[in-house]
Amino acid sequence: MRRSIATVSVSGDLEEKLAAISAAKFDGIELYDPDLVASRLRPGEIASRCADLGLTIELFQPLRDLEGLDPDRFQSALGRLEAKLEVMEQLGAATALVCSNTSPGAIGDVDLSAEQLHLAGQRAAEHGIRLGFEALAWGTHVSRVSEAWEVIRRADHHALGLVVDTFHILARGDTAEVLQDVPGDQIAFLQIADAPHLRTDILQWSRHHRCFPGQGTFDLASVVGAVIEKGYRGPLSLEVFSDVIREAEPRATALDGMRSLIHLEEELRSRWAGQPDDQRPHVTLTDPPPAPRQATCGFLEIAVRSDGDMSGFLQGLGFVEGGTHRTKPVSWWRNGGANIVLNASSDLADRWTRSVDRPAVVGLAVAVPTVAEVSERADALLWPRLALRHDLAEAPRDATDTPAGVHLFLVEGDRWQDDFVPTPAQQPSAAVRIIDVDHLGYRIPFEVSDAEISFYRTLLGLPTGAISEFTEPRGWLRSRVVRSEDHPSAGALQIVLNVIETRTATRIPDRGLNQIAFIVADVFAAVRTARTSGIGMLEIPDNYYEDLRARSDLSPALIGRLREHNVLYDRDSEGELLHAYTRHVADAFYVELLERRDGYGGFGSVNTPVRLVAQARQTMDARPPTAQ
Amino acid sequence: MRRSIATVSVSGDLEEKLAAISAAKFDGIELYDPDLVASRLRPGEIASRCADLGLTIELFQPLRDLEGLDPDRFQSALGRLEAKLEVMEQLGAATALVCSNTSPGAIGDVDLSAEQLHLAGQRAAEHGIRLGFEALAWGTHVSRVSEAWEVIRRADHHALGLVVDTFHILARGDTAEVLQDVPGDQIAFLQIADAPHLRTDILQWSRHHRCFPGQGTFDLASVVGAVIEKGYRGPLSLEVFSDVIREAEPRATALDGMRSLIHLEEELRSRWAGQPDDQRPHVTLTDPPPAPRQATCGFLEIAVRSDGDMSGFLQGLGFVEGGTHRTKPVSWWRNGGANIVLNASSDLADRWTRSVDRPAVVGLAVAVPTVAEVSERADALLWPRLALRHDLAEAPRDATDTPAGVHLFLVEGDRWQDDFVPTPAQQPSAAVRIIDVDHLGYRIPFEVSDAEISFYRTLLGLPTGAISEFTEPRGWLRSRVVRSEDHPSAGALQIVLNVIETRTATRIPDRGLNQIAFIVADVFAAVRTARTSGIGMLEIPDNYYEDLRARSDLSPALIGRLREHNVLYDRDSEGELLHAYTRHVADAFYVELLERRDGYGGFGSVNTPVRLVAQARQTMDARPPTAQ
Repeated sequence: MRRSIATVSVSGDLEEKLAAISAAKFDGIELYDPDLVASRLRPGEIASRCADLGLTIELFQPLRDLEGLDPDRFQSALGRLEAKLEVMEQLGAATALVCSNTSPGAIGDVDLSAEQLHLAGQRAAEHGIRLGFEALAWGTHVSRVSEAWEVIRRADHHALGLVVDTFHILARGDTAEVLQDVPGDQIAFLQIADAPHLRTDILQWSRHHRCFPGQGTFDLASVVGAVIEKGYRGPLSLEVFSDVIREAEPRATALDGMRSLIHLEEELRSRWAGQPDDQRPHVTLTDPPPAPRQATCGFLEIAVRSDGDMSGFLQGLGFVEGGTHRTKPVSWWRNGGANIVLNASSDLADRWTRSVDRPAVVGLAVAVPTVAEVSERADALLWPRLALRHDLAEAPRDATDTPAGVHLFLVEGDRWQDDFVPTPAQQPSAAVRIIDVDHLGYRIPFEVSDAEISFYRTLLGLPTGAISEFTEPRGWLRSRVVRSEDHPSAGALQIVLNVIETRTATRIPDRGLNQIAFIVADVFAAVRTARTSGIGMLEIPDNYYEDLRARSDLSPALIGRLREHNVLYDRDSEGELLHAYTRHVADAFYVELLERRDGYGGFGSVNTPVRLVAQARQTMDARPPTAQ
Repeated sequence: MRRSIATVSVSGDLEEKLAAISAAKFDGIELYDPDLVASRLRPGEIASRCADLGLTIELFQPLRDLEGLDPDRFQSALGRLEAKLEVMEQLGAATALVCSNTSPGAIGDVDLSAEQLHLAGQRAAEHGIRLGFEALAWGTHVSRVSEAWEVIRRADHHALGLVVDTFHILARGDTAEVLQDVPGDQIAFLQIADAPHLRTDILQWSRHHRCFPGQGTFDLASVVGAVIEKGYRGPLSLEVFSDVIREAEPRATALDGMRSLIHLEEELRSRWAGQPDDQRPHVTLTDPPPAPRQATCGFLEIAVRSDGDMSGFLQGLGFVEGGTHRTKPVSWWRNGGANIVLNASSDLADRWTRSVDRPAVVGLAVAVPTVAEVSERADALLWPRLALRHDLAEAPRDATDTPAGVHLFLVEGDRWQDDFVPTPAQQPSAAVRIIDVDHLGYRIPFEVSDAEISFYRTLLGLPTGAISEFTEPRGWLRSRVVRSEDHPSAGALQIVLNVIETRTATRIPDRGLNQIAFIVADVFAAVRTARTSGIGMLEIPDNYYEDLRARSDLSPALIGRLREHNVLYDRDSEGELLHAYTRHVADAFYVELLERRDGYGGFGSVNTPVRLVAQARQTMDARPPTAQ
């Protein structure tokens, strides 16, 4: 199917927008009238520019306040319509979008609206143009698809159809069923937008918080699928407005939109996969290799000046050396399922601009069953692949950067370990028994937050949880979790994305992974051993434990142990979480040790405000780092 | 009356908050329990710290989900209550706030809630503590003051009272009348917050968009006044949460809060001014000198390397030299009521960090009837005054910086002109007849936006208009207008504050005044003369005029003239606006020429998106500056 995007969904002026949309290989656009009005290109020039860029103007939008009018107002509305129809002829655009009237003075009379739209349809038909009518969710009288359809049905003019906007259906809590009585040839246009579930006024929600398919929580395939099943063969067209895209680079946004459509097409494909050929809509949809059925944390790469920078810290957490690289100053450390690679080679500078004067987590290897499939999928989804220096080992691998700049390797199972000469077997210290990596966290700039979610969703097939919001000592922290399952299994990739929301000039500069969380068998034993090895743990205030006593039925003995070990506590319907944090290492990252009891599924977010204050206080106290 | 502020209304950790609140000379605090829980200070230490800082803990808050419970839950709630009452004893806090139950499972039974609060009141009384009950606007069953009062009335316990929160009353559209039946001694506490009118979910509105009195649009004096008239003599306590204060410096926020209370007290004073002594509440309120009855634009100061940098541009706009400074390389230019001072003296570096390598608007002189009164008012409101170099002239003056860093002089009428040796009289070029300064605009960082509004509101008595929101080619522009009247009279100070809302790393760097708008008698003549003098005007696209033709009944001749002169057009119920813009001067600022016909009162904001795109395109085209 043709793919289209509204010019209002990309930042910049019209010329930048068109260039970005074309670069992302869209077939067409919805031309937003205010973009035209503000452009120095005349309509004819816009038409040529679009033709040069391989873009069709699929829709001209919006025409406002065209029905529900008194006779005088309707006459002047027809005048406006006529002028815009002339512009559309110069543009070569065949369909225009008419929004339901949102002015407080609109007249609520279905027959009057139908009559006026009939007359508008006549005018449009004279120019060979079709009008699509859309119910804005905040329309004065016509605010639902069913109401818009009733107006169109009564208006009964061949140049008049319905515009379906997934946002307006799903945000009102409706489903594809509202389209039940609408024949497919009456659907003039389909606009697609996703959104996270939010508690806000619908107008604000629509204007500031829409997002591309897969970045929100709407079941878009159900509505889009139903529309196509009815016979709609127009473009799949993205109409998204948000604070994120207003601030993002236009080219990045357009690419992001294209990826989301490809991903949506994939969902449609699986919707129709089981159906007999003659009952399936005959449309062409992309067919990339599927997302990997499993994605686990292969290893974490930490840049160091020399091994000694980090090995003491790792040993304190029970890690032992697994091997040394066959050709480079790189060592591999392991404890249970957790692997860390210390890289002291200078070629890191190739891809890491920050000078490595102290340890920093610079890469994440994701283990998948077949790298070649994921690489091909990355190509199909337009994710850039990075050139890889193929070393000694034959093991397949690939690499890419996430939109926020995290360097991500793709590796196949454990075969990356072939790069290393194994160190003779040692038993990890019994006292810190790490089971596996639990989750990883990092801060991402606001303007790439939706794109980062897309990355994990589209490439690796990892869905995203709801937004959690925490107060920080300075500003807000908004987190979203990317993970493959509701209840984590050891080793499955789980990533906490912390969106930097601050608008102050003093931006928190840290990029890259800053939170490494390990599941341990016994958090108390782990904390004791770590401390003995000189690793400083984050101090949790006594008041926290007093409050815990007040709000829980934990025994004084357990609370005493938690307090003694600076361990935080949470409980959900399944089980319990006991977790502790090291102080920051090299101002760059910190390690969390979690003990999950009886299938506790969360991340202890109830304790996040206390943790954030303790971390800020630790930074303020500016004690010398205790760990390495 | 005592002045208090909630710790949650200031950023930082508890120790930073207390220091900031004390520095702003508050008498007391509302201690937010999560601030205590996250603090390393034990309750007894918090009590001593507060005592050292001269702060009373006026309120401990909040206790949640204490009524509307089944028997089991209520028992465990009493356990929580008991623990917190013990903490309060250590704190020496006499009043606790109980919020109405917000959990979905709350039981909606007024008598049950009353019975449970009665029992809670008994427990509190045993500790010598009083409970204040507050209806949260999003409470499950108790969401209005009247409902909370009914529960308290039925609970009938001396240790139980009502908490009045201005936000919860006014955001629901209620007025002080809801307190009609509540005796004054039953009001346990008064929380004060303002807010702008917003279309959003009330919970989001409350959490993210409250502001200090005078920064929003609520009529706070009506509710606060009514509460005091009933005999309430507890503290006036600010409870504000917002994205702005979460990001701002704690000390700046606390000062800002204090100023807003002083301003509120002033409003209360005038509320009771006309009343006989025996009918007026006997409370002590601040009594600063009143805000000036008039504030006009005295002059604008532009920093230059030498006069020649700007004199050509000014002459092109019809300015003539009014005089040269008696001692410094400073010249004064005038046209009608507009005055501009070009300052080439090196001592500007004292207060302007940007090196003056090209012209920049660095100061604004506001003319008031009596400088001494305004200075005294600034002191009373804790606005800092800057040391002034008193020069030759005897004319009174003073100076301060606004929170966003605009250097503001206070001058008395025209007496500042005594500093200058008058240049022999010349007539301004007849072709550009400037009547006066219309308005000035500048960009302000998000985190000081509320404080900037406070500055004009409290010091100069200028109220603030509603928020306007525009899309920019990259991001959003949110504007608020500060002005003395609804319909501007020539010369009255009007300032457009453009809040920088972007969260991207690439912040727009420009600070200081960047928009200077003059009222002219004939905009076409002004544009022609300016062009003749080589001043580049901002090009408005033809599409704008096509659209104007479609949406208006203007004659083709007028539209042709507008187009020819790059003049934008707007109309309101009173009259018409014709306005044009110069291109940016020295990348620093631009001049708008406005012709207001028949009392048009706005700023042409309908044209802002087109203007913003044209300005961005102009920057992109990176032509050499045409003016000087």
